[in-house]
Amino acid sequence: MKMKRSERLVDMTYYLMNHPHKLISLTYFADKYKSAKSSISEDLSIIKRTFEVNGSGVVETFPGAAGGVRFVPSIRKADAQTFLEDLIKKMDTKERLLPGGYIYLSDILGSPEILQLVGQIIAAEYKDKNVTAIMTVATKGVPIAQAVAYYLNVPFVIVRRDSKITEGSTVSINYVSGSSNRVEKMELSKRSLPSGSRVLVVDDFMKGGGTVNGMKSIIEEFDSETVGVTVFAEAAYNQNKEAVQYTSLVRVNEIDLRNRTMQLGLGNYFDE
Amino acid sequence: MKMKRSERLVDMTYYLMNHPHKLISLTYFADKYKSAKSSISEDLSIIKRTFEVNGSGVVETFPGAAGGVRFVPSIRKADAQTFLEDLIKKMDTKERLLPGGYIYLSDILGSPEILQLVGQIIAAEYKDKNVTAIMTVATKGVPIAQAVAYYLNVPFVIVRRDSKITEGSTVSINYVSGSSNRVEKMELSKRSLPSGSRVLVVDDFMKGGGTVNGMKSIIEEFDSETVGVTVFAEAAYNQNKEAVQYTSLVRVNEIDLRNRTMQLGLGNYFDE
Repeated sequence: MKMKRSERLVDMTYYLMNHPHKLISLTYFADKYKSAKSSISEDLSIIKRTFEVNGSGVVETFPGAAGGVRFVPSIRKADAQTFLEDLIKKMDTKERLLPGGYIYLSDILGSPEILQLVGQIIAAEYKDKNVTAIMTVATKGVPIAQAVAYYLNVPFVIVRRDSKITEGSTVSINYVSGSSNRVEKMELSKRSLPSGSRVLVVDDFMKGGGTVNGMKSIIEEFDSETVGVTVFAEAAYNQNKEAVQYTSLVRVNEIDLRNRTMQLGLGNYFDE
Repeated sequence: MKMKRSERLVDMTYYLMNHPHKLISLTYFADKYKSAKSSISEDLSIIKRTFEVNGSGVVETFPGAAGGVRFVPSIRKADAQTFLEDLIKKMDTKERLLPGGYIYLSDILGSPEILQLVGQIIAAEYKDKNVTAIMTVATKGVPIAQAVAYYLNVPFVIVRRDSKITEGSTVSINYVSGSSNRVEKMELSKRSLPSGSRVLVVDDFMKGGGTVNGMKSIIEEFDSETVGVTVFAEAAYNQNKEAVQYTSLVRVNEIDLRNRTMQLGLGNYFDE
């Protein structure tokens, strides 16, 4: 349809936001709006500049016949920090402390506005890493995986501790839970991850690192590569944390069950 | 920051898309862009018209001191139908048929672009129903619940068949699985749903309707109301499907395991 510049700007912003990381040819927009490519280019430079100013990401343009435009969502580190500091305040209430030293987070990981930001923050870290799949373990990691998958625009796959009849044949591995020292099993549907995938592992919480190492083993079984590991929260855990390279957004430094207090801080995402 | 109209249009579109269903005062935008409210109003009418043309939703404006603007995402029924007909073609391959007459859907329910559309379609149905929470059962329903929650901008809660130590105290009920006639248990963290909630129940697949009825019972236990039930796919199941009012996007009419064929069609979402 023929549109004015002002309408094109709205429609193109809408389209780019719904198709992050996807290369869109200028011809697509030129045909859609019955406009010259030069006008589309001007529109795109306005969008690019605005996204730069508000810190929501980069609009990359590639010249030539195979070229086009791609929206790479991001977030400023300062904005990420402000958001997480507010979130930490919200998390730091004694009502959230559960028996055994667990923290109730279901409301936080069930809030779409929070998940959006968490997804943006994690996706920003890997935006140039050519990730082709997100992996997590059922069930608490799923919302985070989905939020990150949205901003990187790649599929997410869910490793399970119990087989499901609706998964088809699976590949399973045994792993040692770092914190409890028990041997456990996890499995992934055989057809869910193509070999040669570049996988980003995410989870809600990391203690000993055993679950994350289990996922890394599964990725190897699928002839794929672990690009990185990012968890929403990590627990301070000093008994030789298994050799895992990871990023955390939030760090639980101490839980004092007797006095019902905890000490939370920013994770190593913010380390220099 | 001071911005030109063209830049404001991009930034406001971005902001509205990230805050669906949220009432935003004109003052917020006027302050943000250091512009007169009359200019903001003109901007909004451009956005409103463009969203109307591309069918992506309604921009509602409310006059007065308590007024403002709200973006209500939606999708045209025709666009929903085209999308689902394509998806049905993708689903209808014999490789997806699993022993027991199940269909492999993990790739579909792990694709952010598909989930976006599914979320938009379900959210559109309930956009005027004042839903305050989405409920689903772990684990397959979670991605759908999250996608719908995003477009309605309300939290989602996850009912579980097995208790988790990180949930705190729970309320549990027993229910009869309609298709297998077994008595099963499901539970929900006590603090996850405030009383008086208006709950939309979603799930990936419905056969006998027992799981959905279980969730409706849990909602009653929380002194809340079930506003509606929508499932991604329903199975043809003739043995007195329990009295459940529901909407389905896709219908599995027949599965012939011997010949490895299935017969899929649009769900009752598209009935008149």
